[in-house]
This record gives sequence, C-alpha cells and structure tokens, in this order.
Amino acid sequence: MNKREFIKYSSYLIGGTYMGGNTALTIPSFAEMTGGKKQKGKLVLRYKPYTLQLKHTFTLATSSRTTTPVVLTEIEYDGIRGFGEASMPPYLGESHESVMKFLSLLNLSQFSDPFLLVDILDYVDKVMPGNYAAKASVDIALHDLIGKLVKEPFYRLFGLNPDKAPLTSFTIGLDSPEVIKQKVAEAEPYKILKVKLGRDNDREMVEVIRSITDKPLCVDVNQGWKDRGMALEMAVWLKEKGIMFLEQPMPKEMKDDIAWLTERSPLPVIGDEAIQNAKDIMDNKDVYSGINIKLMKCGGINAAMKMINVARALGMKVMIGCMTETSCAVTAAAQLAPLVDWCDLDGNLLIANDPFDGLKIVVGRVTLPERPGIGVKYMYY
Amino acid sequence: MNKREFIKYSSYLIGGTYMGGNTALTIPSFAEMTGGKKQKGKLVLRYKPYTLQLKHTFTLATSSRTTTPVVLTEIEYDGIRGFGEASMPPYLGESHESVMKFLSLLNLSQFSDPFLLVDILDYVDKVMPGNYAAKASVDIALHDLIGKLVKEPFYRLFGLNPDKAPLTSFTIGLDSPEVIKQKVAEAEPYKILKVKLGRDNDREMVEVIRSITDKPLCVDVNQGWKDRGMALEMAVWLKEKGIMFLEQPMPKEMKDDIAWLTERSPLPVIGDEAIQNAKDIMDNKDVYSGINIKLMKCGGINAAMKMINVARALGMKVMIGCMTETSCAVTAAAQLAPLVDWCDLDGNLLIANDPFDGLKIVVGRVTLPERPGIGVKYMYY
Repeated sequence: MNKREFIKYSSYLIGGTYMGGNTALTIPSFAEMTGGKKQKGKLVLRYKPYTLQLKHTFTLATSSRTTTPVVLTEIEYDGIRGFGEASMPPYLGESHESVMKFLSLLNLSQFSDPFLLVDILDYVDKVMPGNYAAKASVDIALHDLIGKLVKEPFYRLFGLNPDKAPLTSFTIGLDSPEVIKQKVAEAEPYKILKVKLGRDNDREMVEVIRSITDKPLCVDVNQGWKDRGMALEMAVWLKEKGIMFLEQPMPKEMKDDIAWLTERSPLPVIGDEAIQNAKDIMDNKDVYSGINIKLMKCGGINAAMKMINVARALGMKVMIGCMTETSCAVTAAAQLAPLVDWCDLDGNLLIANDPFDGLKIVVGRVTLPERPGIGVKYMYY
Repeated sequence: MNKREFIKYSSYLIGGTYMGGNTALTIPSFAEMTGGKKQKGKLVLRYKPYTLQLKHTFTLATSSRTTTPVVLTEIEYDGIRGFGEASMPPYLGESHESVMKFLSLLNLSQFSDPFLLVDILDYVDKVMPGNYAAKASVDIALHDLIGKLVKEPFYRLFGLNPDKAPLTSFTIGLDSPEVIKQKVAEAEPYKILKVKLGRDNDREMVEVIRSITDKPLCVDVNQGWKDRGMALEMAVWLKEKGIMFLEQPMPKEMKDDIAWLTERSPLPVIGDEAIQNAKDIMDNKDVYSGINIKLMKCGGINAAMKMINVARALGMKVMIGCMTETSCAVTAAAQLAPLVDWCDLDGNLLIANDPFDGLKIVVGRVTLPERPGIGVKYMYY
C-alpha cells in the first residue's frame, strides 16, 4: 500500500473521507467528493489537495516561488455543504502531505450538530499540536456550514456591518523595477499598496513605486532587517515617503530590539510572524503597536475573533491578512474585516486558478458577498 | 409638564417609546407596550420600570434591602420582539430614573437592521458614559431579537454546547443563624453555595452553614475586609472549611494588598467590583486569579464575551454572575455559561415576582432553554 492508499484507507476507517484527485494545476473536481459517505444527522468531512498557480513569481526576503499548495475541504451536514481551505506557504512548515494526514486523523462523524463549534474545534485542536492551516480549513468550513444553516452571512451573525470594512492593500512582491511597475499598474483598483522589503535594495524598491504612484503604501519586511539602528533610520525615511506602517521589521526573536524600534519609530510597528495566537499578543504587548492576524497562522475565524478582542483590550492596532489562497479562505478572513484597522486581503488575486467566487474589491474596499455562510460560490459544480 | 410627561414627550420626539405603567409590585403590563408605534423595517425600543420584590431581605457587607428596581425593555423589528432588562442594585448608582432617562435618549429607529449589533451598541455606548445596566438592557434585547430572527438560541450562534455549563451557586446573604439555616434549606437543588461575608461574624456564618451542609462553598466579601494579614488568615481558615474561592476580599482600590494576598492565598482570589470591562482585566491581571463578569457591570453579552476572551488569554479563571434580576437577564448571562469555570446565576430565584420563564437549575446545573434568542418566555401575554 503506498502512502496515498494508506491515507485513503485510514480516513475511511476513522470517519474522514478522502476526496481523491491529485495536485495537478487543473480545476479541482469537487464533484468527486460526493463519493464520500453521507451520514444523516452527522458531520462528514471531505478534502482534496490543490495547487495554486501564482500569476507572478512571488519573492519575499527569504524565499521565492511560483505555486502554493492548498487543501480544499468541505463539511456536509444533512445535504448542506460548508467550504474550507488550508493554504501552506512552504516557510510555515505545513504541506499537502501534513494537512492530508491531519485531516485523515479527524473523526467529525462523532458530531451530530455543527452548532457545537467550540466543542468541535477543541477536539480538532487536541488531535495534534500545530497544523494551524489544517485546523483553519475545518474552522472555515464549519462557519460556512453554520451560516448556510441559518441562511445568514457569518459577518451578520457576528453583528458586523460589511460597509465598515476598511480599505485593503495589494501586495507587491520583491522584483525587478520593470515587474514592480507592472504590478503597480495591475493594482489599480486598490487604494493602498503593500511592498515587501528586507533585501539590499529596499530604498530603490520604494523609489520605483513612488515614481509611478503616490498611493498610501505599507511595508512588510518579513523579518528581513537585523540591525535596529538601521531599522529606525529606514522607518524615518519611510515616514517621509508616505508609508503608513511597518510590518515585522526584524526577526521575531529580537524582541528587545523591536521594542526599542517601536518606541522610537514614527510609523506603527506591526507584528506578523511573531503573533500566532492570543497569548502571543500578551507576550508582545510592549513589542509591537499592532498585530497582523491570518487564519492560517491562528487556526481560523474563531481564534481570530479572540485575538481581535485581546488586541483591542490592549489598545493595539489590528490588521487582517492572508496567504496566497483562494477566494474561499480570503473571504472567510474578510468576515472579520469590519473589526480591523487595515485589511491585506489580496491572496486570491495573486493566483491564476481560483475555483471560488467570493469577496470583491470595489473602489479599494472589501465588499463582502451577501450569500449565507462565508459567502463563496464554487465555480465548477 | 411633570417629569414622567417630560420623559414620555422626549421619547416620542426622538424615537424611543415610553411604555407607560408604574413601579408598583404588580405584574408588569407588557401588553401596554404594544401601544408603541410600529415602524416597518425599523427597530422600535420600548421600556418600562418594574420593582422586584425579594423573598428575603438581602444583606451585603455594606447595605441591606427588600426590593431591586429594574427596567424591562423590548426591541421590536417586523413583528418580532426581543426582551431585555436593566437591574439596578442601589450601590451601583443607576436607578429607575437614570435608566428611563438614558433609554429615552436613544433613537433606535434610525437602524433598519438588527444584525448591525456592533454599530447599534457602539451608538448606544456613546450616548452617555456609564449607564451600563441601561446599556445591557439594549444589548440583551438585541441578542434575543437576532436569535429569534434566525430561530436559534443565542448560545448556539456562539457555537456553545449547553451541556458544558458548570455547576451554579446559590447565594446566602448575611443574616441571623436561623435565617441562614432556612436559606441553606431552600438552596437544596444547588450543589454549590455562596456566602456573603465581610462583617464581624464571618467565621460564625461559615460555621453555621458547615453545621448543616458540607456542600462546596464559595465566599464573597464584597470588599468588606481592610487588612491583608487578616484576609490571608481567613483564606487559610476558609480553605480548611472546604471553600472553593474568595471573591473581592478587600476594597478594589487596595490593589497592592490584594495582589499580596492572591500571591499567598491557598484559594483563588476573584475580582468582582474591580472588574467592569476588558481593560480592567488587563489592569488587574497580576492582582486577581480570576474575574466575575456581570452583564449589568459590563453593558451586556457582547462586552462579556470580549472579557471572557481576554481573561482566557491571560490564563485567568472566569465566573459569570448576576444581580437580583428576573429570568430575562439571568438567562441572557447564562448564554455564556458553557465558557466559564463557575456560574453564580441565581438572581431570579431571590425574587418573588419574576415575570419571565427562562433557565432552570437541574441537579445544580444551569439548563438553558431551547427557545430561540435568549430563550425566555414572558408569562403574562
């Protein structure tokens, strides 16, 4: 028995249902999932690996890639299906293999009521430590399912006004000046740009963008700077260039240096890699001015809401971001957009093979779908 | 124009609807409220003062009383009504007059969608500072309304399992040994008792209770002790007597002394009067082991959920309590019971004229109604 057969076999044994399919860059055949065993009055989990093709090679301070592996999930209950997704950028340690394995270990058919969300997520959380993207894929599918069962978009169940979603930024990866210019042009519908820095040509990148647009800009260093004095100099220079905030300027382990920078920086300093969950916010409350929440880091919408509550009680700024992922996970994150200061929800726009229709960016602002649940529509049923 | 006419007049002008009625110890004539102007597609707020008659004179370390003023509210939207309540124990500074005035200032008819809960509560919060019981009465009615609109109990919209509600305690006020004995007998269905201490006969009170029952007991001092050395001695003695935790042992201003006590106490020390909102939790994270959340202190269910998330991120214990109030506000608080360590939800059992049917205590445990919204039924329609 090879690994795939083993996974398939295991999942049948313990209640998960392997959806079949492969990782090719094709339309994901969700239809195949219907092969899963329906069980009246029970939750049925199905999942399938999928590979996102990026429109542009995506370059960060520490890595470069043209694809992102994701796993698409669905949870079915009495004929209603909630959609979810795990996205696994390689530097975070999860993969097709790890997510498929994690999901194969879950036995959701032990639950006969999707509204027991907290119990279900507690169970999922305890199956193995880590695996936050895999856990998020269950959390998202459950929220989608619950919203569909009560026939309301989930942001409404949170009591949120979709018109309060802030402007969202579009991310420009590290690249040659020519490609940067092309990306800035593509980002026309966005009112805010985000540029990835952290290499040796940071000032040049900013100058290139500033030569073609004076849109508000934010900067994500992805831990790329190592010297706090240089970081402060850059912060002062970036402030002059109309930059709004500075994200994860230095390695998360350099807490004292980042705290030193935050105290002196004319720009708010946002923690991203350093901030996975609510406890991390507490531990870093004097290190950063704000936090970047991503469903794939924290394990889903439920955990993200807790993080927002904690950050606000500490008077911290909050942004919600995403990985390169389909409209499914991006639209799930957007359910919380009305509660945050900044959105960075462009992951779906960086890919060429999005199988979902979800949020739209209208005049730079997240526009949430009015469909129930997280509001995405699978395009190929 | 006398004050009542003025209030009535003002409320007509700005969109609130005064419900008429008086403060007598009669069945509250909710029916009168239907006199309020229905407005299709708009929220209509109605309210009415009511006076709760206590079964026993209720004595705390600092006060004694036989009644509690409350205001009953309802928010109607397209023929569906959500119920709410403000309870105003006199030592907290709110009254019939202040709550009626606050509610008369609200113009909820500016809102055409009850699901915009966060916007509506933000608006209510900004009308005047303080007035948390008045604000809670709006929060509760909105949650009830939303749950009824989607036809689900609100605890299910929070993803909570009602079977996870912990044991709830029954409160024995300060009294003569004979009355204490009678109250302990009345508390038969409860598995945990809570005794109010803070006068000069604390040990006697505990001994009286221990002479008739060995049920787990918790102690609420309501800021009654002034000396930390004596407080620690009592904590050690109470531990020997099988007490579970110690609530607000000293005045909330004595933070250093309480922190000193908490560090040494064999019992968890819970903050009540000191903890009104999420920021207070942050400010007291090194002072108490846990917090007591009450809807009338924090302004309602929405604020209470935030407090739970913050306290949990700090690793603090959480209890949810109540004032003397009807089954309406108690059952509203109980929606959150599955998330807490201890419940102290007995306020409705201390009164003789509860107009609502709501949660039940079954074998010492909160049993939540399966009705939608907060799940209470007004008894006199």
